Amino acid sequence: MKISKEEALQYHRAKRGKIGIAAKTAIRTKRDLSLAYTPGVAFVSQAIAENKKLDRELTNKGNSVAIITDGTAVLGLGNIGPEAAIPVMEGKSAIFKSFANIDAYPISIKETDPKKLIAIIEALAPNYAGINLEDISAPRCFEIETELRKRLDIPVFHDDQHGAAVVALTALMNALRVTKKKAEEIQIVVNGAGAAGIATTHLLLAYGVRHITVVDKQGILHQKAKGMHKYQVEVAKLTKPKRRGGLAEAVKGADVFIGFSVGNVLTKAMVASMAEKPIVFALANPTPEIDPAEAKKAGAYIIATGRSDYPNQINNAYVFPGLFRGLLEAGASEINSESLICAAICLSGLVKHPTPLNIMPSLFDKRVVETVAFSIQNSGVCVCKY
Amino acid sequence: MKISKEEALQYHRAKRGKIGIAAKTAIRTKRDLSLAYTPGVAFVSQAIAENKKLDRELTNKGNSVAIITDGTAVLGLGNIGPEAAIPVMEGKSAIFKSFANIDAYPISIKETDPKKLIAIIEALAPNYAGINLEDISAPRCFEIETELRKRLDIPVFHDDQHGAAVVALTALMNALRVTKKKAEEIQIVVNGAGAAGIATTHLLLAYGVRHITVVDKQGILHQKAKGMHKYQVEVAKLTKPKRRGGLAEAVKGADVFIGFSVGNVLTKAMVASMAEKPIVFALANPTPEIDPAEAKKAGAYIIATGRSDYPNQINNAYVFPGLFRGLLEAGASEINSESLICAAICLSGLVKHPTPLNIMPSLFDKRVVETVAFSIQNSGVCVCKY
Repeated sequence: MKISKEEALQYHRAKRGKIGIAAKTAIRTKRDLSLAYTPGVAFVSQAIAENKKLDRELTNKGNSVAIITDGTAVLGLGNIGPEAAIPVMEGKSAIFKSFANIDAYPISIKETDPKKLIAIIEALAPNYAGINLEDISAPRCFEIETELRKRLDIPVFHDDQHGAAVVALTALMNALRVTKKKAEEIQIVVNGAGAAGIATTHLLLAYGVRHITVVDKQGILHQKAKGMHKYQVEVAKLTKPKRRGGLAEAVKGADVFIGFSVGNVLTKAMVASMAEKPIVFALANPTPEIDPAEAKKAGAYIIATGRSDYPNQINNAYVFPGLFRGLLEAGASEINSESLICAAICLSGLVKHPTPLNIMPSLFDKRVVETVAFSIQNSGVCVCKY
Repeated sequence: MKISKEEALQYHRAKRGKIGIAAKTAIRTKRDLSLAYTPGVAFVSQAIAENKKLDRELTNKGNSVAIITDGTAVLGLGNIGPEAAIPVMEGKSAIFKSFANIDAYPISIKETDPKKLIAIIEALAPNYAGINLEDISAPRCFEIETELRKRLDIPVFHDDQHGAAVVALTALMNALRVTKKKAEEIQIVVNGAGAAGIATTHLLLAYGVRHITVVDKQGILHQKAKGMHKYQVEVAKLTKPKRRGGLAEAVKGADVFIGFSVGNVLTKAMVASMAEKPIVFALANPTPEIDPAEAKKAGAYIIATGRSDYPNQINNAYVFPGLFRGLLEAGASEINSESLICAAICLSGLVKHPTPLNIMPSLFDKRVVETVAFSIQNSGVCVCKY
C-alpha cells in the first residue's frame, strides 16, 4: 500500500484534518438550551459535586480517552514538536472512533520536562476515563508512565510500549504454532531497547519466554554493558544474557528476531546464522530491518513487518481500540500484564489455522476489537470471546 | 422555562452527556488506514514540522477551540471542582457545535494556582485556534486572561467577562433606542464587581458611557473604598464616582441598573428612586436582583433578566458562537474592544423596532451567529452584515 506524499497531503487537506466534535443532541429550542445549559445543567453539576462518581453517568467522561503526546518521538520522525504531532493524534482518534466507538481527544502538549509534563497530565485527568500516551521519547516515557500510574485512578497506557508488545506477542504465538516451537525453549533477540523493545521484553518474560537477548546501539545489553539508562540496566539484569558482542553475535542460533530499530540492520548472513525455521519480525518503519524478499532468500521461515504492503502486518491498531473499549466497559482503574497476555492469546486465537504467510487476523475483522475488549475485562483466568 | 432537577438529570443520563468525537472519514480499509495513519500521515507531520502554519490546513486545528475551566466559579454554584464543571463545558461545546459548527473541546483542569494554570493552558495551546476561558473565579480570572493574551498567538476570551459585557451592551443599545436616551448622558449603576461587572464597565467606558457607578459588597467602589483588589481599584480610578454609600445611594436618579450580583438585592423603593423610564437588567441567576413583576410595579420601563421564562433574556450564547466563528474565519491572533463593540452594534441592529418587551433578537435567528462573526472580522470601521 504505497501512499505518495501528494495523496497523503490531499487526503488531509480535503476536510482539514480527520476529526471534530459531535453534539449528541442539537440545541434548537429554548427548551433544549434550558436542559443542556443554564438553568438545567446546574442540577447536573450539583449532583456531580455531591457525588463525583456520577460524572460517568451524566457526562461523556466514561467513553472519553485522552491521546497525549509531547511530540518528542513522532513515528520515525523524532522530536518534531506538538503541532507536527497533531495529524498522528487525529489519525489515532479516528481509528478509536471507527473501530471501537471511543471518543479520543488528541492533546499535543508543548512541554518536554518530564516532571512538568506529568503535572499537566495529572491536571487534565478529571476529563477522561483513560489515558493513551503516545510518541513520547525513551527513556522519559518510562518515568512518565510509571509516575502517572501511581498518581491517577484511571488506566494509563503508553501505546508505543505496550501496544507494540501485545501485537508482537500475538504474532509470536502464531509463529510458534506454525513452527511447533515452545515459548520457554526458544531464543529471542530483541533489537532496539527503546519504548517498544523494553516493553516487549518485559511482556515476553511475563509470558514465560526464558531466553531473550536485547541489543541496542552499544551491542548486547548485559549487566556490564556501557551507556545504559536505568530501564536498560533493568532489562540486562532480568535477561542475564551470556553472550557478548553485537547483533551478529546475538542472532547466531536464535529462533526469533524482533526488530524495533532502524532499516537494513539485519543482513542475510545474520538470518542464515539463525536456528532452524527462523522467525523474523522486522518492524522498523517505513524501512524494515531487512527486506522481506531478502530475508526469505536467506532462509527466514516466517516474516512479519509493520507495513501494509507485505503479508503479516504487525500494527498497534490491532490492540488499542479494543483494549480501551474493554477498560472503559469495566470502568477499570489500571491495566496489568496478565490482561495484556490474555489479549494476545485471544487475538492470536482468531487465526484458526496459522500459516507462514498468515499469522495475524484481518485488522478489519470485527472480532478483533471485541475479543481484545473482552479479554481485558476478566481478571485472573484468561477467557476468550471467540 | 422551568426545568425540574429530574428532567435535567434524565436529559443528561439518556445519552451519557452531550458531546463526543466525530471522525470526518471512517477508517474501513487498509488504504484508509495508510492515508489517515501510518505510513501516509508521516508526510503530513513532516510538512507541518517544516512549516508550522500548515497545521490549520492539514488538521482540524483551524476550527478547534478549547473551553477551559478550573471549576472555581461554575454558574452560581461556586468552587465545585473540575469534575462537576464538565456538564457545563459539554453544554457550551454542544452550543458551539449547534450554533456555529465549531469544534470546542471541554477541558476541566485540576489546578487552581493561577501561575500553574497559565503554564498548563500555554502548554495546551498548540492544539487550538482559540481559547474560551470559562467559570474561573475573580480576581484570578483577570490575571490568567491577561497573562495568556501576552504569551499566546491565538485569541483568549474569558466568556464570563466579555461575553456578558457584549450582551449587556447589546441590550443597553436597544433600551436606549426605546427610551430615546443617549449613552454619553446616562447614569449607569453596575452592581457586582466580579468578572462580568468589571468587564462590562470597561466595555461601556470604551463605548462612550461617561457616568458609571460600580457597587460591590463594600458599597460604591470609589478611590478610597476599602477591601478592593487591584482590578476593582482600577475600575474606581476610571469611573471616578462622586457618590458615596451603598446600592441605594448609587441607584438614586440613575437611568440604568445592571446587576451581576445575587438575587433580591434591588428593592422596589430603589427602582422607584431611579430617573425617568428606568432600565433594569437584573442578570443574577437563577434568582434576579429583583423579580420582574415587582420591578414593573415599581416603575421600571424596560426589564431584562438572564432567564428564559421572562421577556428580554440576556444570555452569553448570543455572542460566543459567532464571536469565535469570526475569529476562526479571520485566523485572528487576538480580540479587541472595538470588535466587541461592533458585535454589540450589529447584534442590536437585528431588532429593527425595539420595544420595552423586545430589545433582543431571537437567540435562534440564524443571523445572530452570522452577524457577530462578520462584525469580528473587520478591523477599524464597524460594518454589519445585516
